Amino acid sequence: MRILIAGCDGYLGWPLAQYLGSRGHEVAGADNFSRREWVEECGSWSATPIHSMEERLSAFREFSGRTLQFWPGDLRDYTLVEQIFREFQPEAVVHLAECPSAPYSMIDRDHAVFVQTNNLTTTFNILFAAREVCPDLHLLKLGTMGEYGTPNVAIPEGFFEIDYRGRRDRLPFPRQAGSWYHWSKVHGSNNLMFACRLWNLRATDVMQGVVFGTSFEGQGSDPRLAGRLDFDPCFGTVVNRFCCQAVIGHPLTPYGSGGQRRGFIPLPDSLQCLGLALENPPGPGEYRVLNQFENVYSVGDVARRVQIAGRALGLNVPIHHVENPRVEMEEHYYCPDHQKLFDLGYCPSGDADSALLMMLEELIEHRERILARAGVLLPQVRWDGARRTSDFAGLTHAAD
Amino acid sequence: MRILIAGCDGYLGWPLAQYLGSRGHEVAGADNFSRREWVEECGSWSATPIHSMEERLSAFREFSGRTLQFWPGDLRDYTLVEQIFREFQPEAVVHLAECPSAPYSMIDRDHAVFVQTNNLTTTFNILFAAREVCPDLHLLKLGTMGEYGTPNVAIPEGFFEIDYRGRRDRLPFPRQAGSWYHWSKVHGSNNLMFACRLWNLRATDVMQGVVFGTSFEGQGSDPRLAGRLDFDPCFGTVVNRFCCQAVIGHPLTPYGSGGQRRGFIPLPDSLQCLGLALENPPGPGEYRVLNQFENVYSVGDVARRVQIAGRALGLNVPIHHVENPRVEMEEHYYCPDHQKLFDLGYCPSGDADSALLMMLEELIEHRERILARAGVLLPQVRWDGARRTSDFAGLTHAAD
Repeated sequence: MRILIAGCDGYLGWPLAQYLGSRGHEVAGADNFSRREWVEECGSWSATPIHSMEERLSAFREFSGRTLQFWPGDLRDYTLVEQIFREFQPEAVVHLAECPSAPYSMIDRDHAVFVQTNNLTTTFNILFAAREVCPDLHLLKLGTMGEYGTPNVAIPEGFFEIDYRGRRDRLPFPRQAGSWYHWSKVHGSNNLMFACRLWNLRATDVMQGVVFGTSFEGQGSDPRLAGRLDFDPCFGTVVNRFCCQAVIGHPLTPYGSGGQRRGFIPLPDSLQCLGLALENPPGPGEYRVLNQFENVYSVGDVARRVQIAGRALGLNVPIHHVENPRVEMEEHYYCPDHQKLFDLGYCPSGDADSALLMMLEELIEHRERILARAGVLLPQVRWDGARRTSDFAGLTHAAD
Repeated sequence: MRILIAGCDGYLGWPLAQYLGSRGHEVAGADNFSRREWVEECGSWSATPIHSMEERLSAFREFSGRTLQFWPGDLRDYTLVEQIFREFQPEAVVHLAECPSAPYSMIDRDHAVFVQTNNLTTTFNILFAAREVCPDLHLLKLGTMGEYGTPNVAIPEGFFEIDYRGRRDRLPFPRQAGSWYHWSKVHGSNNLMFACRLWNLRATDVMQGVVFGTSFEGQGSDPRLAGRLDFDPCFGTVVNRFCCQAVIGHPLTPYGSGGQRRGFIPLPDSLQCLGLALENPPGPGEYRVLNQFENVYSVGDVARRVQIAGRALGLNVPIHHVENPRVEMEEHYYCPDHQKLFDLGYCPSGDADSALLMMLEELIEHRERILARAGVLLPQVRWDGARRTSDFAGLTHAAD
């Protein structure tokens, strides 16, 4: 299948390109390297050393024997998007060309406007180019489980049947996102749902849980093939951040009580899920929503699991809670469905604890890089608009 | 009360400025006159002659004895918005500074992106300026009943209590908008709801039905005070368009079967509702949603009522259905609540039929202006992306 990855240089995009290539697909990509710039703007870099796209593409060719066609550029430029579609004629597009950070969107007015307008514009460009050039393609867009927020009822996969005042309907499940970024994903999901109804496009909207990990089985060992792994509080998601903290002896830093419950999935399983969704496309006009995660943990649970995995490797891993910079519930009901990917054949590749161990082992090699940017590890972006580094809020699980 | 009207030169903004002034409020305004440009871009103009803002402001001063402070400029410019807030220190802001046309947003990719990013950016600027400068102000934003779409269940005012798989919650009612414009309003409502939670702002989000009419009782008769009234299919809403068609002998043009049901409200009643909402603000942190309309009619009903009103004035008013350029249900359940404004004291000013008669009488004076732009009366913007003028689809209610 000819698959275009929009945002091919990012945390998911680069491993996904390799994974889909290994499954025999013809993969192409586009990116303007924004992720590298955003992380640099936040004073950080990838824990794993990453290479230029030229080097990545050479290694891809050497390892797989295939060429990955790549267009550098900003997908907010519609002319470029239409040109890529005309030249590559994708059968599927994976849309990762969005700014994926909640804290980054909460920095200030400029970042809020940037994240929402950037994400809306790239999505519009992909939708319109699909309509114009390849109306039968399958668009797989990354949403986030964070679109749903934390309602006091079960969370279905996108839609629910309700009885309301004696009548029935199947309606989109209400969204209650928790950052301007998460709302940008809701806006995108809404636009995507509408485009399917309007133009008979086929789309999968993946409500993705928190992905963690650096690599997948079958990935080449050439360092030029390595994916990025961020640990700053804007672009490093919680598991990755905790693991980076663990390997340098920095306390793990759950926000607030750490009772926030979220869905988590290791990177290899996320790749497997995206592959399954691509290889089992929905029908024309169908807007399909998949909740993609494997286990629900609280942030405190995650910290304790990282602590245990770290100890197994001889690491001293204290846990220090910090003031919560976010506006969010710290204790809440959380029960999202995640059946549809299993129905497509999803088979979890292993347990979360061994995935944590593997990641820690890999990160130990990059201790110096993490130490060199350890100044960014505490959150500075607060949801209330103030700008100051969160204090430690007490020590609940000290190291031995 | 010091009330800032963002988008003070538009269809609602200009009469609202006069109405609020007549109720003793200190009114200020800002606008970049986009509405005039958009209508011109669509090849049309206001049926009622409208004057420059300088002339409008002079007439306002002469009629009311008060000065309306006015800032010309684009509210996508945050510096300007913050400057206005600092200088005027508004206690309330009415946010009308959005592009309000569904068909305009459906013209092509550029218009879709423009409408959504324009509307998001002005809303963000107002939210951030409120947080920075006047966090206690009451923000009244115009939404639209079109955010809800046409679900097969009753439509509450913004939120509903549900029982779902044995648990209960109060959730935002799902939105199913029908154009990129309507989705821009959903995006704005979502951002507004989140800002209230985040920063303890107080806001009213008015889900407005279709407003019709040209003037209100108590408005000065100076022609410089006149409000605009559009009849092109992008900016002229259905009742106003039908009335303009009626006075020049052009057939009324329901789209498709005309069975689409919507909520309608005459302009004076809309002004009354907005005044009531402003004079009864919600508490800090409260995000209040009001459904604002008076009667539900089908588009076919509206055509027949305009036909009857026209006949009373000796007008020959045929009705010719045209192919529906939109993707929408033409026969559907529709039962939205609209209680909260009555609870605030809303008292409808009269019946819809006499409002139609008044509007027709006024428009007859401007027949020549409508005739001069009659070429725009049939829709050209299609939801499927094609661009062609809709054909007449059969003649169901011919004139005598």
